[in-house]
Amino acid sequence: MSDPNPLAERHCVKCEPGTPPMSSHEVGQGLEQLDGWTVEDSEGHMRLTKTFKFKGFMPGVELVNRIAEVAEAEGHHPDVLLSYGSVTVHLFTHAAGGLTENDFILAAKIDQLTKS
Amino acid sequence: MSDPNPLAERHCVKCEPGTPPMSSHEVGQGLEQLDGWTVEDSEGHMRLTKTFKFKGFMPGVELVNRIAEVAEAEGHHPDVLLSYGSVTVHLFTHAAGGLTENDFILAAKIDQLTKS
Repeated sequence: MSDPNPLAERHCVKCEPGTPPMSSHEVGQGLEQLDGWTVEDSEGHMRLTKTFKFKGFMPGVELVNRIAEVAEAEGHHPDVLLSYGSVTVHLFTHAAGGLTENDFILAAKIDQLTKS
Repeated sequence: MSDPNPLAERHCVKCEPGTPPMSSHEVGQGLEQLDGWTVEDSEGHMRLTKTFKFKGFMPGVELVNRIAEVAEAEGHHPDVLLSYGSVTVHLFTHAAGGLTENDFILAAKIDQLTKS
């Protein structure tokens, strides 16, 4: 996928507590706009997950820093597991208790980081 | 614990495959030299774990970077879970299939980072 993803051009909006999570149908539609992300159940809610592979440790640290910059700018923060050779990103929206469009927007922006 | 930890002054040594993991007794002795670390079972092997709490996201990112610098210098790399408000560090030695002195040395060095 080398075309820019329109999702990546959008911005996260503030999510108030009580915001409903996306339906399974909406999640499926969202996944079609992403590249290599999966949805998994974690402690009773859905989350978006992707693992990026690297050689060594420092390229992963660099990605963590780039993700952090985007996350801070968007006010939406993933869980990030840094290991030797990989970075796994988990996204979900606490205030909604599930997935919202913010998660898909941030996923698309993270993908963009790894392609630039 | 404000005195410098002697463990933190030592350096990790290269661990060849087949190196035996520490015994439970040795692990217990190692824990006595650390501050706030616990041992847990993960996928059939023991690992050292500690969670550091923060306000916000970026102080955790900063700790990840400082941990990465020490890990690279020692040639021993933890798994690090970065979340909003916390960083959880997991240490174990792949080559030994369990805990070695390297894990305790790196744990002590990571503690030192958070106290300086």
